[in-house]
Amino acid sequence: MKGQVDAALPGDERFFERNGPFPLQKLAECADARIVGNEGIDPDRLYVGIAPLQSAGPQDVSFLDNRRYAPLLEQTRAGVVLLGQAFVDRLPKSTVGLVCQAPYLAWARVASLFHPAPAVVPGIHPTALVGTEAAVDPSAQIGPFVVIGARASIGAGTRIDSHAVIGEGVRIGERCRVGAHACVSHAFLGDRVTLLAGVRIGQEGFGFAVGPNGFETVPQLGRVILEDGVEVGANSTIDRGSSQDTVVGAGSRLDNLVQIGHNARLGRCCIVVSQAGISGSTELGDFVTVAAQAGLIGHIRIGTKARIGAQCGVMSDVEAGADVIGSPAMPFREFFRNVAVLRRLAKKTPREGGGEA
Amino acid sequence: MKGQVDAALPGDERFFERNGPFPLQKLAECADARIVGNEGIDPDRLYVGIAPLQSAGPQDVSFLDNRRYAPLLEQTRAGVVLLGQAFVDRLPKSTVGLVCQAPYLAWARVASLFHPAPAVVPGIHPTALVGTEAAVDPSAQIGPFVVIGARASIGAGTRIDSHAVIGEGVRIGERCRVGAHACVSHAFLGDRVTLLAGVRIGQEGFGFAVGPNGFETVPQLGRVILEDGVEVGANSTIDRGSSQDTVVGAGSRLDNLVQIGHNARLGRCCIVVSQAGISGSTELGDFVTVAAQAGLIGHIRIGTKARIGAQCGVMSDVEAGADVIGSPAMPFREFFRNVAVLRRLAKKTPREGGGEA
Amino acid sequence: MKGQVDAALPGDERFFERNGPFPLQKLAECADARIVGNEGIDPDRLYVGIAPLQSAGPQDVSFLDNRRYAPLLEQTRAGVVLLGQAFVDRLPKSTVGLVCQAPYLAWARVASLFHPAPAVVPGIHPTALVGTEAAVDPSAQIGPFVVIGARASIGAGTRIDSHAVIGEGVRIGERCRVGAHACVSHAFLGDRVTLLAGVRIGQEGFGFAVGPNGFETVPQLGRVILEDGVEVGANSTIDRGSSQDTVVGAGSRLDNLVQIGHNARLGRCCIVVSQAGISGSTELGDFVTVAAQAGLIGHIRIGTKARIGAQCGVMSDVEAGADVIGSPAMPFREFFRNVAVLRRLAKKTPREGGGEA
Repeated sequence: MKGQVDAALPGDERFFERNGPFPLQKLAECADARIVGNEGIDPDRLYVGIAPLQSAGPQDVSFLDNRRYAPLLEQTRAGVVLLGQAFVDRLPKSTVGLVCQAPYLAWARVASLFHPAPAVVPGIHPTALVGTEAAVDPSAQIGPFVVIGARASIGAGTRIDSHAVIGEGVRIGERCRVGAHACVSHAFLGDRVTLLAGVRIGQEGFGFAVGPNGFETVPQLGRVILEDGVEVGANSTIDRGSSQDTVVGAGSRLDNLVQIGHNARLGRCCIVVSQAGISGSTELGDFVTVAAQAGLIGHIRIGTKARIGAQCGVMSDVEAGADVIGSPAMPFREFFRNVAVLRRLAKKTPREGGGEA
Repeated sequence: MKGQVDAALPGDERFFERNGPFPLQKLAECADARIVGNEGIDPDRLYVGIAPLQSAGPQDVSFLDNRRYAPLLEQTRAGVVLLGQAFVDRLPKSTVGLVCQAPYLAWARVASLFHPAPAVVPGIHPTALVGTEAAVDPSAQIGPFVVIGARASIGAGTRIDSHAVIGEGVRIGERCRVGAHACVSHAFLGDRVTLLAGVRIGQEGFGFAVGPNGFETVPQLGRVILEDGVEVGANSTIDRGSSQDTVVGAGSRLDNLVQIGHNARLGRCCIVVSQAGISGSTELGDFVTVAAQAGLIGHIRIGTKARIGAQCGVMSDVEAGADVIGSPAMPFREFFRNVAVLRRLAKKTPREGGGEA
Repeated sequence: MKGQVDAALPGDERFFERNGPFPLQKLAECADARIVGNEGIDPDRLYVGIAPLQSAGPQDVSFLDNRRYAPLLEQTRAGVVLLGQAFVDRLPKSTVGLVCQAPYLAWARVASLFHPAPAVVPGIHPTALVGTEAAVDPSAQIGPFVVIGARASIGAGTRIDSHAVIGEGVRIGERCRVGAHACVSHAFLGDRVTLLAGVRIGQEGFGFAVGPNGFETVPQLGRVILEDGVEVGANSTIDRGSSQDTVVGAGSRLDNLVQIGHNARLGRCCIVVSQAGISGSTELGDFVTVAAQAGLIGHIRIGTKARIGAQCGVMSDVEAGADVIGSPAMPFREFFRNVAVLRRLAKKTPREGGGEA
């Protein structure tokens, strides 16, 4: 590439806001952490930014959350590291530790201190189209070429990015963010809902009956309800219900390229990782995790706190708290035992002919 | 969520048109059904809407198609229920039954009676751009910020939603619908073709050769042909052919996030469920079903009425009428027998050491 | 379909540019090939176009690369066929052979000779919006309704298609192509980078910590770096890094609906086929192939030239040069042996009861 790309530093000023510097004491409060190591350090000492362990310098804050990266801790030049008690004795002498219960959560907060999310700039871009009787809060930001349908409402502090399309009658709450090229129809969104670019909310579900001359469409007459704090990744699709609603519970997070079928209901704080799919009328309890590329057939129930492994194919109900994986889904332990048993059998089996197992 | 979301009623008037009320006799005709139960009911009695069994009231029409929900029938307060003969004796006394051969098809038609698809409003939005020599039928509806390329043609009664992009020379038939942010190039669409939001039709396929300095693109010189009545779900992608055409046969239905590779050919009335992928140059006969997240490699043939199960990985031809599942694909019966045999073996196998199977 | 679709001929003039005719000698040079068969043919004889073996006529050039289609060679009416030495004796008498080392590469070049990629037409469409201090090279083509953010730069000969959104500060090199409805933020693109329609580059990755009141977002403060010659298929998504960058190495090709997580690093000339997903912080060496619908968990390393099979689920590091498949991933040979062993065991096992294996 011509014109060198600078070494990777988080928070590139071309793209991100930057606050600070902040004194150690402020960082400790933000992280809800205890200061350790580097005896006698001045709590008013200032730090200017954040960085990963391998590139952080004496003025930077870093963190350790994943045991896999512990060896990097011993060599870091970071001024401060957020970490758990278990790693304190691997801190270099020149580095201050901020010991906390939940280092990753602390990192989220400290990183947000240095690099806050961009502020919403109130106003409707002159190229945007706002339909009759639509109610756009004066504090909302509506980008170029946005189309807002008649009677839609957009809450305070909400940002709608360029080219997004909000259908007639749609209700979007406060402090939401709708990414570029997203479209939303037949839907109600709570507060603090985030849709990344290209998300499709509220289109008709996959419903048709076999008629004498081919398939006939079954009208899809429900809605999509995204409760407070729901986030949906880029290019994901959530179909509206057929005769009930499709619902995603408060605080749930969906990754990119996820599919949610009509009438599906997700509880609160569910996690659905990239390229997973949940078929129509299936219900998830609260705190369910669906890992990447997993698929759930329709009309089943997944209990609270169940965890569905990557690429898992779930064909029947899953109990609360269960961990399943495989296609068809089975308990984690069973799956890995099956894998091991089959491997052992295959090794013992002669390549040709019908030898004894 | 602030501002309560009303209980889920299908056909929310903020989003859907509503016709009616309709007399029982009219509903029976529409459903091609026989009136049963509730002796002496007036065939002119009026019904105002539709609803699922659990929320329908005495003025509503409901339906039962899935055996799983039969217990709801016994408790429903619905005025009328569309159902098959087998469930008639579970009808509550106060509910009229409309007995039909195909309750789901009947439901599609009755629901459409109450809630017809929105009418097309002829005209070209002033922000839309229409290229030279493009032919847009005066009865077509062209939304805001739509771009229609030179020499493209758009048929009577077709609706192109906001921001859609129709490439040069593309031909779109009558009564089609192209969703927001969809784009179509190098393609011919028949009549009554529906593309949901974000669909990508006609981009170059994944074709390149290994050259001395890396990959070199193989020009993709074919087209996409979507025959009459084809429907494509949100954010799905259909690449144009390389030297032949990519073809989707009349009446076929593709769900969201589906991928169709270059030169693939689907027959009539195929079903491809969400997140499934069909690789280049593979051919499907008529009435083939490909379930969710299934994948077909390139250059194979799938016979008429074959059914490919969810997450199936198909690496070779599949015979007409066959049911396959698993990765690699095998007959349904074999797959589930393998699963059972492995489970039994694993239970008998000691956890450690090389015990006898 | 009303209005018949013409028989599939590649290079339909409604959609593609067309050059030529070209003399045999020129074709042989372009293909770096040796002329064989049809003794005494005039090297100045002209050919007008390209076509597949089954539809090519005496004035057309065709090619054979896949052994599967060799029977078509014997019956072709093509004037010239690009092919490898091994197939020369199956050439019809009336057909000239152009024998080359790499027939598919030769085909790419000859096809490009007849049908060059459309020329870039310099200029900024009057509906496009270009932010303050953005630098758009005068030779670049900026389509309708494009939005280019402040301080972004667009290199010479680059084409940005309609509705694309280029974020603030983004740098795009020379001779790039950004498809309709694509959006790019927090990113640097090298030269000759191609993004097809609907691609999402640079959105925040899937990062959050568990807080006392639900999930809290971890700021995603890295960038996306797409090196020279990278191509990304329609509706694919590449998240920006969290504290490092997400990098795709020079010459790599990604198909449609692919997901690349934050901090992932792909080497040079990698291939990632449709609907595959690479999780956060995973690293691929050079020349790695990831087949369709495969999934890689986060924080692992895949060695140079490794090949990951379709639908493979990779949960741990893969050595350089290894071929793996299955979920969990294992060597190709082991996978297919396991499949065979299980099939044999299932056949021998009585259907009911706990019979001996």
